[in-house]
Amino acid sequence: MGNSFGARYRFTIFGQSHAPAIGVTIEGLPAGFTPDMEALQAFLDRRAPGKGRYSTTRKEADAPEFVSGLVDGHTCGAPVTAIIRNTNARSGDYENLFRVPRPGHADFSAAVKYGRNRDVAGGGQFSGRLTAPLCIAGGLALQLLAEEGISVSARILSIGGQTEPDAIQGTLEAAKQAGDSVGGVIECVAEGVPAGLGEPMFGGVENRIAQAVFAIPAVKGVEFGAGFGASAMRGSENNDPFYFDDYGVVRTRTNHHGGALGGITSGMPIVFRAAFKPTPSIAIEQDSVDLDAHENVKLSVQGRHDPCIVLRAAPCVEAAAAAAIYDLLLEGRY
Amino acid sequence: MGNSFGARYRFTIFGQSHAPAIGVTIEGLPAGFTPDMEALQAFLDRRAPGKGRYSTTRKEADAPEFVSGLVDGHTCGAPVTAIIRNTNARSGDYENLFRVPRPGHADFSAAVKYGRNRDVAGGGQFSGRLTAPLCIAGGLALQLLAEEGISVSARILSIGGQTEPDAIQGTLEAAKQAGDSVGGVIECVAEGVPAGLGEPMFGGVENRIAQAVFAIPAVKGVEFGAGFGASAMRGSENNDPFYFDDYGVVRTRTNHHGGALGGITSGMPIVFRAAFKPTPSIAIEQDSVDLDAHENVKLSVQGRHDPCIVLRAAPCVEAAAAAAIYDLLLEGRY
Amino acid sequence: MGNSFGARYRFTIFGQSHAPAIGVTIEGLPAGFTPDMEALQAFLDRRAPGKGRYSTTRKEADAPEFVSGLVDGHTCGAPVTAIIRNTNARSGDYENLFRVPRPGHADFSAAVKYGRNRDVAGGGQFSGRLTAPLCIAGGLALQLLAEEGISVSARILSIGGQTEPDAIQGTLEAAKQAGDSVGGVIECVAEGVPAGLGEPMFGGVENRIAQAVFAIPAVKGVEFGAGFGASAMRGSENNDPFYFDDYGVVRTRTNHHGGALGGITSGMPIVFRAAFKPTPSIAIEQDSVDLDAHENVKLSVQGRHDPCIVLRAAPCVEAAAAAAIYDLLLEGRY
Amino acid sequence: MGNSFGARYRFTIFGQSHAPAIGVTIEGLPAGFTPDMEALQAFLDRRAPGKGRYSTTRKEADAPEFVSGLVDGHTCGAPVTAIIRNTNARSGDYENLFRVPRPGHADFSAAVKYGRNRDVAGGGQFSGRLTAPLCIAGGLALQLLAEEGISVSARILSIGGQTEPDAIQGTLEAAKQAGDSVGGVIECVAEGVPAGLGEPMFGGVENRIAQAVFAIPAVKGVEFGAGFGASAMRGSENNDPFYFDDYGVVRTRTNHHGGALGGITSGMPIVFRAAFKPTPSIAIEQDSVDLDAHENVKLSVQGRHDPCIVLRAAPCVEAAAAAAIYDLLLEGRY
Repeated sequence: MGNSFGARYRFTIFGQSHAPAIGVTIEGLPAGFTPDMEALQAFLDRRAPGKGRYSTTRKEADAPEFVSGLVDGHTCGAPVTAIIRNTNARSGDYENLFRVPRPGHADFSAAVKYGRNRDVAGGGQFSGRLTAPLCIAGGLALQLLAEEGISVSARILSIGGQTEPDAIQGTLEAAKQAGDSVGGVIECVAEGVPAGLGEPMFGGVENRIAQAVFAIPAVKGVEFGAGFGASAMRGSENNDPFYFDDYGVVRTRTNHHGGALGGITSGMPIVFRAAFKPTPSIAIEQDSVDLDAHENVKLSVQGRHDPCIVLRAAPCVEAAAAAAIYDLLLEGRY
Repeated sequence: MGNSFGARYRFTIFGQSHAPAIGVTIEGLPAGFTPDMEALQAFLDRRAPGKGRYSTTRKEADAPEFVSGLVDGHTCGAPVTAIIRNTNARSGDYENLFRVPRPGHADFSAAVKYGRNRDVAGGGQFSGRLTAPLCIAGGLALQLLAEEGISVSARILSIGGQTEPDAIQGTLEAAKQAGDSVGGVIECVAEGVPAGLGEPMFGGVENRIAQAVFAIPAVKGVEFGAGFGASAMRGSENNDPFYFDDYGVVRTRTNHHGGALGGITSGMPIVFRAAFKPTPSIAIEQDSVDLDAHENVKLSVQGRHDPCIVLRAAPCVEAAAAAAIYDLLLEGRY
Repeated sequence: MGNSFGARYRFTIFGQSHAPAIGVTIEGLPAGFTPDMEALQAFLDRRAPGKGRYSTTRKEADAPEFVSGLVDGHTCGAPVTAIIRNTNARSGDYENLFRVPRPGHADFSAAVKYGRNRDVAGGGQFSGRLTAPLCIAGGLALQLLAEEGISVSARILSIGGQTEPDAIQGTLEAAKQAGDSVGGVIECVAEGVPAGLGEPMFGGVENRIAQAVFAIPAVKGVEFGAGFGASAMRGSENNDPFYFDDYGVVRTRTNHHGGALGGITSGMPIVFRAAFKPTPSIAIEQDSVDLDAHENVKLSVQGRHDPCIVLRAAPCVEAAAAAAIYDLLLEGRY
Repeated sequence: MGNSFGARYRFTIFGQSHAPAIGVTIEGLPAGFTPDMEALQAFLDRRAPGKGRYSTTRKEADAPEFVSGLVDGHTCGAPVTAIIRNTNARSGDYENLFRVPRPGHADFSAAVKYGRNRDVAGGGQFSGRLTAPLCIAGGLALQLLAEEGISVSARILSIGGQTEPDAIQGTLEAAKQAGDSVGGVIECVAEGVPAGLGEPMFGGVENRIAQAVFAIPAVKGVEFGAGFGASAMRGSENNDPFYFDDYGVVRTRTNHHGGALGGITSGMPIVFRAAFKPTPSIAIEQDSVDLDAHENVKLSVQGRHDPCIVLRAAPCVEAAAAAAIYDLLLEGRY
């Protein structure tokens, strides 16, 4: 089922943008784990909107309530469910949203799939807001990975094709002024992952991280190590030479393989990049269709929107990667 | 489990390069389907080695025997199992393979995961030969998709960074002469896929095609539509305008979204690209380690190897995509 | 994962007896379904305690709040999550529960599995209270099945080995006076289930109903049709003769097969029985162990307990069966 | 999918009675395990027909060929596939089988599910012959369990309602003479299973053993410990008192719970019973229907059939239980 992920660390994300709540139900957390709730909240705050000039000004508390699975602050072996109440009341006239899908949005494909029954308010179940419960599941995984000496860290590599801070700033400002939006690339590195995790073929590290990361709205590409760049290399260049380091551990001198060989971890850092398309919601007038009137129309998306969600995407990528890696870790433990 | 894929069209691939056989067990084929065995064999032949100047000269029949699931040539509702006998006898001295992992190969990660118990002959379960049963499962899916008016077609987009035939030819020849290898990019297009397939978040079209495609050895990146290129675009450029075509069907004027919006198919062609790294097995001497002697050593990979597996990879990508899309189609049918 | 059930109608039950809440997250509900909330509440009330002389006097509202998946009262295609707040505050001294497991309870096996981290208050995640969210998932399935003309109905067949009302009454009164408890048998019948549902072997109707029903605390046996009685019959007696009824439908004159042949539904009513052991919690002194002091001790379970949970079990059995049958129905629809 | 079982020890059974082969593909076998092939063959021989006066005289070799997953006789981490060639050629006129379903058989439900495409020869995929690959998967699990000090052993408890050898003999002879058949009960005991295995609710020991055992054709009931008998007991009688044994291990003085409390193993022997209905194939004339002519007809099943399959069922029950318990063991190990 689409909202569920994982084999051993398995969770289901629920909620819509304007439902009473969003949240997540997690199976597979070991009994006796005491989540650091402050650290989790800080992690959630990293993805929350309303903090910068290029993010939406909508204010959300995003404070999860853990309604099951904890006793005196520690896990007890029962599934953990956390919910975040939505404070934005469902209201107003959604008729236009039903009729005119926003280009680049899930509006149209959702209309085909669910018909008039779909929840259009605030993007419904396709809202970027659903990354908050992903960050709960991933944030807990991050804490458990840290106990094993594993870190997962993501950063912005480029925005609108620019990699330098000044150029990025200029690109963002120009897009904002134009009522437009820009995309970007997030790079994520997981260090300390032991060698030997993952299964051959469909159960490999890359398959599973990709499955998790493509769940983040706007992700259109995932590559590991040298990725697409490797396609232009020669083997003698791309192959990473092995050597014994000073501690007698086998390592590679370069890391074009991005930590995965044959889908199995090599012990080198897992490195991958996720490409984000520009936010579809823009003020600039676009061509669309009126699904009821059955005619072509013009559309200007109203309201305040992030000109660049990539600014808030790094914790989401960390969360997706951490969930996948922790799942692999549990699997590899038996 | 790693060798299994799919929710409704579910199969498990088995075998090693030098085991008695490789094959696949498939659940979910509808009863009453008569596979076109000649078409399937022709499809398998497209990925078979031994046909060109830049492919290995190893000859394999790759003729599957269907040992279950068929009656008088049609499916009966029982699981379908097909096996391909391996004719290359397991023989010779594998001691060096146990000791010295080839850079860029699964040799090392497999050594960590399975220890001395692993099958090293011919790459064992990590051999590219395992794409043959993938092509059986995918080839049957292709035939079933064709009955629904859906086609899946892959082609070489670039090799060694070159996109023009002459330049590709030159790149291949140079690599072969140098005892080296080159990678490339395969582009795949699925046409006729109905809108509304796929599930939100982890069950989307992109998640599942990526999970399937990363199972093909040497794939290091997967991108949909404009992919990584979209990260440098503005929303007004990347958003695909909707319109009603002459038949009253909603379409988009461009297809930067690659057929998936919010993980759900839009009815536009699904377009994705897979990046293949260069074949790790090269004649050029490389640095590696002797896992037993615990020392750094030099390694030259002997034997005949493809300087470029991308030449044979297109049917594998089609197979992986077809399996994922057929699985989505069955899921969407209920 | 243990708290999850189903392939197409898939739900995860969460909560503990004294956690902030219990609840369920459901994937697979069709978009556009409007649950009859009054009917659901009435169904939940059937399993609620506090109504009869032989049930606990603990009062619970058991009014679910649907926090996701609904829009204007109908499903929208997103997962549905419902929670029930626990009003019984976690308090008091649980030390004795940690030390001395109740005979017949999950106390001991939970202690081995989760150690001191387990939630012992009110039975934790092993509490019969967790059948409330099962009844939410099953209650919604019942409504969806009713739309297809399928009914699922359970009734008490025997209590303490007695089948007559007067004898049952006597048995209950005697057990209550003695501070003891009694078990019983629930019979469940599903009518209107179309023929052809279910999969061979592990995916049969019986396998899946059994998997669901054994989730209800205290169930120790499940049998279909003639069940254990069939083991003493001859084939000529147990085989159900086929005939065409007046509407040209194939039916059987008897129903010893209980609606399933080869794991596939026959179109005849699905009939099964579930055996419930007597409630383990009794006032009578029993032998147990002190897990900390490592010595044998005597135990009298304090508090008010149902002398017979079978009186409240019928809706739970209906819920489990309905969830399994609706899952089969969705599966069979593709 | 119906032919697959297990989460960590996962296998898919394939084949039909008269297909080229039957077999099984297993994922989850640890690398480095050397199956005792003689012991496995001896185990398979226990379920093979043709050995006694009350079994069919059909001769089958049932010698599995392991086509993948082994290297030099030991597992290598790749999936293990074993096939058994069917020597009974598919031939003759199956028209009658298509038209007239045998009472008590899967003939009718399979006809509804798969239509004319189904394989009717020898029972197709519903043949008891499919228990041979179950015995391969279960037989390997038995060997792995034995390495952990766990034994699984099944025996005939009753046949035709009789429990004494002489009475059983008389019942069998009478049924054979009458061209009739009889059912029976198999009891299975697993000793040495550590406490703490299994998951709450749907993932419990009972749920999973039941799911496996109901896959054996003719099983109509499964009960654990005191089972249906517990429904007539009082709590004070059914509750198993705890005590510390001489080794300081917590045990119960009786074992009415059959080794599972709250779905979690207690460390006491797992005890369960499976009820087998009498073989449906009998020579006595029965009422059936002609599905093509759409009229009621008489049917006498021709050919040699077991008057009592229970005589050969014990290894199948052991296999199903062993597979489920080994799966639980792997799951509990992480």
